[in-house]
Amino acid sequence: MAVGLQEPEIPPAVPGIRLASGAAGIRYVGRDDLVLMDGGEDATVAALYTTSAFRAAPVLVAQDHQARGRPRWLLINAGNANAGTGDPGLQAARASCMAVAREAGSDPGEVLPFSTGVIGEPFPLERLEAALPALHAGLAEDGDGWLRAARAIMTTDTVTKLASRTVALSGGTVRLNGMAKGSGMIHPDMATMLAFLGTDLRIDAADLDVLLRAASRESFNAITVDGDTSTNDALVCVASGASCVCLANAEDRAAFAGALDSLCLELATAIVRDGEGATKFVTVEVSGAAARPEAERVAETVALSPLVKTALYASDPNWGRILAAVGRAGVPDLAIEGVAVDINDVAIVRGGGRAPEYREEDGQAVFAADEITIAIDLGRGTARARKYTCDFSHEYVRINAEYRS
Amino acid sequence: MAVGLQEPEIPPAVPGIRLASGAAGIRYVGRDDLVLMDGGEDATVAALYTTSAFRAAPVLVAQDHQARGRPRWLLINAGNANAGTGDPGLQAARASCMAVAREAGSDPGEVLPFSTGVIGEPFPLERLEAALPALHAGLAEDGDGWLRAARAIMTTDTVTKLASRTVALSGGTVRLNGMAKGSGMIHPDMATMLAFLGTDLRIDAADLDVLLRAASRESFNAITVDGDTSTNDALVCVASGASCVCLANAEDRAAFAGALDSLCLELATAIVRDGEGATKFVTVEVSGAAARPEAERVAETVALSPLVKTALYASDPNWGRILAAVGRAGVPDLAIEGVAVDINDVAIVRGGGRAPEYREEDGQAVFAADEITIAIDLGRGTARARKYTCDFSHEYVRINAEYRS
Repeated sequence: MAVGLQEPEIPPAVPGIRLASGAAGIRYVGRDDLVLMDGGEDATVAALYTTSAFRAAPVLVAQDHQARGRPRWLLINAGNANAGTGDPGLQAARASCMAVAREAGSDPGEVLPFSTGVIGEPFPLERLEAALPALHAGLAEDGDGWLRAARAIMTTDTVTKLASRTVALSGGTVRLNGMAKGSGMIHPDMATMLAFLGTDLRIDAADLDVLLRAASRESFNAITVDGDTSTNDALVCVASGASCVCLANAEDRAAFAGALDSLCLELATAIVRDGEGATKFVTVEVSGAAARPEAERVAETVALSPLVKTALYASDPNWGRILAAVGRAGVPDLAIEGVAVDINDVAIVRGGGRAPEYREEDGQAVFAADEITIAIDLGRGTARARKYTCDFSHEYVRINAEYRS
Repeated sequence: MAVGLQEPEIPPAVPGIRLASGAAGIRYVGRDDLVLMDGGEDATVAALYTTSAFRAAPVLVAQDHQARGRPRWLLINAGNANAGTGDPGLQAARASCMAVAREAGSDPGEVLPFSTGVIGEPFPLERLEAALPALHAGLAEDGDGWLRAARAIMTTDTVTKLASRTVALSGGTVRLNGMAKGSGMIHPDMATMLAFLGTDLRIDAADLDVLLRAASRESFNAITVDGDTSTNDALVCVASGASCVCLANAEDRAAFAGALDSLCLELATAIVRDGEGATKFVTVEVSGAAARPEAERVAETVALSPLVKTALYASDPNWGRILAAVGRAGVPDLAIEGVAVDINDVAIVRGGGRAPEYREEDGQAVFAADEITIAIDLGRGTARARKYTCDFSHEYVRINAEYRS
């Protein structure tokens, strides 16, 4: 059902980043569900975590290890989120890091754990531990490892999400690969969006953090709508430094930031395109707002409205539902006479009412498209915001009603 | 599909309140879609309207007439919301009031118009005008008129929503009837929740307004979640004064307020029970909050979570989704160790994790019930809030994808 997505090919390797995947049987049978990633001795790591009060045990441990140590290992499992598991869950997350460190002969503080899957079930630590030696033995730097890892972290995803960039900098060429999982994107409480990026750029952790945060703003944070709000969400970038190329000047910085931004946007929109039950990919663009938070609020309200989403699913040009969502978005003193709405190239609303030139058949045609841009001009300023979402189908209910059983 | 609802019987009449219904063919064929209600010469009217920036034309006209005049007539149509219709819509709403006034020999300012149905389509004023003479001729005070009117204002409702109370006051007995429509309750942007109440109590408009606002707080405003946020939502009470009984003392006031509260709660929960595609009626009770807005925010977040709602629909005790919703509700410094969750009589979460005594089969049983109370104790104060919602089914998507076509 994924809108406009194809299975990715094997990307180039990223020098200095080694990956291994395996089947630990954490929940799934007969498929990989565990990934180990190593950035090497000189690795720097930047990560953004969910802001939920109910952060999962691995998130708490990862934040702790990152604050105190110098992480280079990522351990990622699918099938069990290790969230809502109380103190035993925390112990299990810590023990999983210890198991990695034991095999690697390193410190547990060098390991960041990540989990995705069902919330509230005891974490099967023994199965993870049993699978680890084979993963350690299989660590390799090839591009095939990225594809296999991207598949191992999937839950309800129907398409593997993997993207790659090659960036020419003044000191040489660097690689940037990224994988993501997540398809519960109709609403931002999916558990879980995870994205793991790797590069051979040489960069310190603080600078990498600045670039990663900037890249997330218009990509992963433009799809998770309320910010990072599930129990397990994380976006991580590991830089191995193996290229010995650093950002030597402003041009280098712009080039790498541009590649990072576009890779994050590709992965983030892939999550929306593979939204649970999605049949359409929808961009909500708000302009003419008095300030950016107002633009974001309107874009989010429209992007989250079940009535708008079901109308999009039905290809029914019931654009009144868009106006209703704009109206309830809480914009103070909004003058509806100033509001205009376009969908793709069709003028729908002018002056707060139906555009004079609007014809029902044009609405029918444009609502039937697979890729829909809803452009809303509030007519009261210059601030803008953009959100990505998908439509709301029978399939969404089926997937979410059946996910556990 | 409505959960625990039955078709209402004919209620007692309310002295001084006359009703008539008819088929204007505004959108539907072969059914009543237009209601005229008259509170009589001494009528007082209190009304709460949507706070949306995109208020429909009839709402703007009703607010204007109420602010300036002394309304006694209500004109209500189903099938067309007259919203997003610009200046022509405003003209049509005003003209519909003039048409009522012409028949009645009164002033247009005495008429409040209300509309529900599709947004953004031109309002068929002529059909409404053509049907009005028969409605005027048919105005009557009998209880049957209430039942017929309650049916005429339905859109996607599957059950007629009508309730009645008899209140013994020190000066005699008064009647209180109410009807409501609305079933798009999964999310608060449904267009439209309408409720019309009538009583023969003698009360001034300002005092009636105080009582109606208080009654709405724990009823209609506990289901519309974000407040009155659709384009057309309205809650109106007409008092004819025909009983010549007034609220003579504190006991009278408490008795009438109690009847008004319980009638509003019955109608509001009936809307949820008839929620589009609802198979379960869900009460979310939050306690132990530091302040009421915090309790409301948590209750709303849980009540609106599509993941929680689909799990309830599937009777899947995936209670981790409840924790995830609590976690992302934006409560500052929430200590998850203090959080407890019970569903009906089953302890689910204690200390932020699975309750020691919890067994999966108990969860299965309680999630399978038709009526589910999710009780969440935040363990940080004494403030409480309660919200009513329903589950999220295949049927919701079908109804909203097919409503217009």
